[in-house]
Amino acid sequence: MLDVQSEQDHRNLPLDRVGIKKMKYPIALRGKEKGTQHTIAEVTMSVDLPLHFRGTHMSRFVEVLHSHAHNMELKNLKTILSDMKQKLSASRAHLDLEFPYTIEKMAPVTGILSYMVIPCQFNATLDETDRFELVYGAKVPIQTVCPCSKAISSRGAHNQRANVTILLISKKIIWIEDIVKIAEQGASSPVFPLLKREDEKFVTENGYDHAKFVEDVARDIGVVLRESESVSWYSVEVSSMESIHDHDAFAYLEGGQRT
Amino acid sequence: MLDVQSEQDHRNLPLDRVGIKKMKYPIALRGKEKGTQHTIAEVTMSVDLPLHFRGTHMSRFVEVLHSHAHNMELKNLKTILSDMKQKLSASRAHLDLEFPYTIEKMAPVTGILSYMVIPCQFNATLDETDRFELVYGAKVPIQTVCPCSKAISSRGAHNQRANVTILLISKKIIWIEDIVKIAEQGASSPVFPLLKREDEKFVTENGYDHAKFVEDVARDIGVVLRESESVSWYSVEVSSMESIHDHDAFAYLEGGQRT
Amino acid sequence: MLDVQSEQDHRNLPLDRVGIKKMKYPIALRGKEKGTQHTIAEVTMSVDLPLHFRGTHMSRFVEVLHSHAHNMELKNLKTILSDMKQKLSASRAHLDLEFPYTIEKMAPVTGILSYMVIPCQFNATLDETDRFELVYGAKVPIQTVCPCSKAISSRGAHNQRANVTILLISKKIIWIEDIVKIAEQGASSPVFPLLKREDEKFVTENGYDHAKFVEDVARDIGVVLRESESVSWYSVEVSSMESIHDHDAFAYLEGGQRT
Amino acid sequence: MLDVQSEQDHRNLPLDRVGIKKMKYPIALRGKEKGTQHTIAEVTMSVDLPLHFRGTHMSRFVEVLHSHAHNMELKNLKTILSDMKQKLSASRAHLDLEFPYTIEKMAPVTGILSYMVIPCQFNATLDETDRFELVYGAKVPIQTVCPCSKAISSRGAHNQRANVTILLISKKIIWIEDIVKIAEQGASSPVFPLLKREDEKFVTENGYDHAKFVEDVARDIGVVLRESESVSWYSVEVSSMESIHDHDAFAYLEGGQRT
Repeated sequence: MLDVQSEQDHRNLPLDRVGIKKMKYPIALRGKEKGTQHTIAEVTMSVDLPLHFRGTHMSRFVEVLHSHAHNMELKNLKTILSDMKQKLSASRAHLDLEFPYTIEKMAPVTGILSYMVIPCQFNATLDETDRFELVYGAKVPIQTVCPCSKAISSRGAHNQRANVTILLISKKIIWIEDIVKIAEQGASSPVFPLLKREDEKFVTENGYDHAKFVEDVARDIGVVLRESESVSWYSVEVSSMESIHDHDAFAYLEGGQRT
Repeated sequence: MLDVQSEQDHRNLPLDRVGIKKMKYPIALRGKEKGTQHTIAEVTMSVDLPLHFRGTHMSRFVEVLHSHAHNMELKNLKTILSDMKQKLSASRAHLDLEFPYTIEKMAPVTGILSYMVIPCQFNATLDETDRFELVYGAKVPIQTVCPCSKAISSRGAHNQRANVTILLISKKIIWIEDIVKIAEQGASSPVFPLLKREDEKFVTENGYDHAKFVEDVARDIGVVLRESESVSWYSVEVSSMESIHDHDAFAYLEGGQRT
Repeated sequence: MLDVQSEQDHRNLPLDRVGIKKMKYPIALRGKEKGTQHTIAEVTMSVDLPLHFRGTHMSRFVEVLHSHAHNMELKNLKTILSDMKQKLSASRAHLDLEFPYTIEKMAPVTGILSYMVIPCQFNATLDETDRFELVYGAKVPIQTVCPCSKAISSRGAHNQRANVTILLISKKIIWIEDIVKIAEQGASSPVFPLLKREDEKFVTENGYDHAKFVEDVARDIGVVLRESESVSWYSVEVSSMESIHDHDAFAYLEGGQRT
Repeated sequence: MLDVQSEQDHRNLPLDRVGIKKMKYPIALRGKEKGTQHTIAEVTMSVDLPLHFRGTHMSRFVEVLHSHAHNMELKNLKTILSDMKQKLSASRAHLDLEFPYTIEKMAPVTGILSYMVIPCQFNATLDETDRFELVYGAKVPIQTVCPCSKAISSRGAHNQRANVTILLISKKIIWIEDIVKIAEQGASSPVFPLLKREDEKFVTENGYDHAKFVEDVARDIGVVLRESESVSWYSVEVSSMESIHDHDAFAYLEGGQRT
């Protein structure tokens, strides 16, 4: 059977990336506490395509994904990228996963348990010299209470749900559970799926007592990451769904070395 | 050239709706104040298909849309549906439009002007007896301040952006600008694209002074619509992006007669 | 502590639905073949609110959800709704779940295995007379090949990915795996995550040999559901991402009795 | 009134970007042919925040936007960024716009006219040395016909809608209308909102005669951009909604110099 993809190409133009996108696939990975977690990821996989080949063999991405989906640990990603490079005769390989990950939350006063689902991402690359780069992180919902609104108003203060997106390159693996904690410690307050009245009182007052701009939250988290010995590079974006506007306010910083 | 669509069908199964979806198209319609407004709609158009025809002629929907896009007034919709019935030899026709519509907003203290963009929808049907039904409305961003949080907390009160979706069947046309006003009057506070410090103080305090559950907002708007002589049928959904949770709270009611 | 929600309401306006939306929660349910499947659902839960109560107690929805999340079988839904009615002192309860569900697919010639993820939904209601209604179904990706394009063109035929959304009320439970099969048997061709060259040849030719309009696919599936003794009510929507347009074509039918 | 934003900050951490996001705003800009076009953009605006300031003044972004919204020409963007730098006492400013833009399309055989709506983006930056960088482009829907499927199958060939995203840095302004043409000339076939039967036959056969992988489309467009004297830097992504899979295939390349 003809192999059109393997035809010679004469346009003299290599492709930076060819691959598959918007691929939903079940994956399993280990959590910090409760053993293996099963979830469904949106997967992007790609390799470079040298200038003399016309096309890549798209089905091989799915074969590699299928053979590793049961073990999507951070520490297994380099092996997957090596497989991609080999099976697709490529010099660089990229793997991006976005997936929801479940953590347990305990209400701050009553201690009632519930689950919160955190959007996470892994972005891994293996280059032509077999250098491996892994950026990973999570988007953590929090509450921000506006210090300006609090200072100028004789009562109340506008507040809102916000999202903190932390991305890291790290020397040793930092659990998603711990990234969530770093984000929540920088917030006016964490948010919770389940709050009884006593909890709601606590969250309201605690948030009000820790009024913070998105700028403050980004910096307080930035300070923690700057001082962490495990973290080589980091970015923090805080985006708040302003309750007095129909748009969001955001702050972004990055620091460290991408190498 | 063959007309496969016009072949006889023997499955003895009429289709309730056949047509086109996710069609982006530029439209123009008149606003309450500033003359014609140009925007881009997502359009769904469909007709019924009698049991003896194999297929409809999809291109004719686009021809009808193109010929009327410059005039998407509510009062022109019946003509468009009549055209659809005739050009597609159908007994029922449906036209659904979703589009962003711009209104001017004035900051409550400083009076500074800015624009706010409101998602709107028109859902129109012309049936086999040429009875015309038009449901239309808008999704209006507002602020809700939680009365429970205010009552039980010694300071502050959680608040958040919410959306009020009002849908109407009316005896005479109610302008989108007026639907927005009805939604905002039921809110803890309206939201604004542009607020200076004096405005932000006013919005914070005013919202705090009018703490309302989503249930309260839905009912206060429901009362206004129930008492309006122009309104035959209405639905109100209020959905708030709770600032202490990562999920939304909502309340829904409907009233009046659909015919 | 004050219970503002339980205050008397004087607006004389009952609410049709109050509850929570856009709640992501981990759930487990049994599959046809491989035992329990873990996935993450987007959950909507609501009850009615009688006219004399000011608000509902939103946290109780999450408590009910948490206590049942490990067992989201279809046959457990009535119990969950009963719990909601009781814990929230309501006369009607509604539970809506949307979740991705994984099925195994075998390539048609080589037999290679891979996973495909199917968006599913359960919509369950328990009314004031404890009548239980369950609508459930799936959105199944397929291929459609246009019979008109095939008939009028001297070579080729435009084709595209389409989605078949089947919703059912049934006398006995129909597995998601079987709903997928019904959708695929009505298609020009099923789609697959993983196809080797021999498989791709088969899918291309098979699809071309079974050229069908969205109208044809909807009817062929409608005929199967009309004749099934297990199905009381059904709806079928086929929506195709036309490869010659930037919009979709769709066909919709429903049949049977909702009781 | 207190100006909390202007407080001294002691965390010694500058912010790369602070500003507003997900702001919908009506804009006007000139088209190649038909004069001014009105549309609604999603706007992101940000500046850097030096380490000694606690917060930025978010309302000023909206003031700048409001004063320029009626003239969002590419050649006006540098002025807007200068205003942002000045009004916000910042050294760098960023403006990102995403908006739908309407072009006229003529059916290839019958010549019938209709409108197609193209998602566009402008990403402009003015840095601390007043160096201006503008990346702009469009996402153009096209058709791809698979050359492998065509070669190995005895009849038919799978095809699908794809999107070509072209981004440019250019020495002189290239109209959106011309970017669309470049994308379409690299495709198996352009797509059209409105095709009569004669047109559909032409598009089907023409696409079949120009079977191309996403890799081919990216390269053919890359060759054109590489050879254009107006273009300094370019990227091309082609992403096709494979009709035989439920995921997309993509190819990406970039070339030229970013300064």
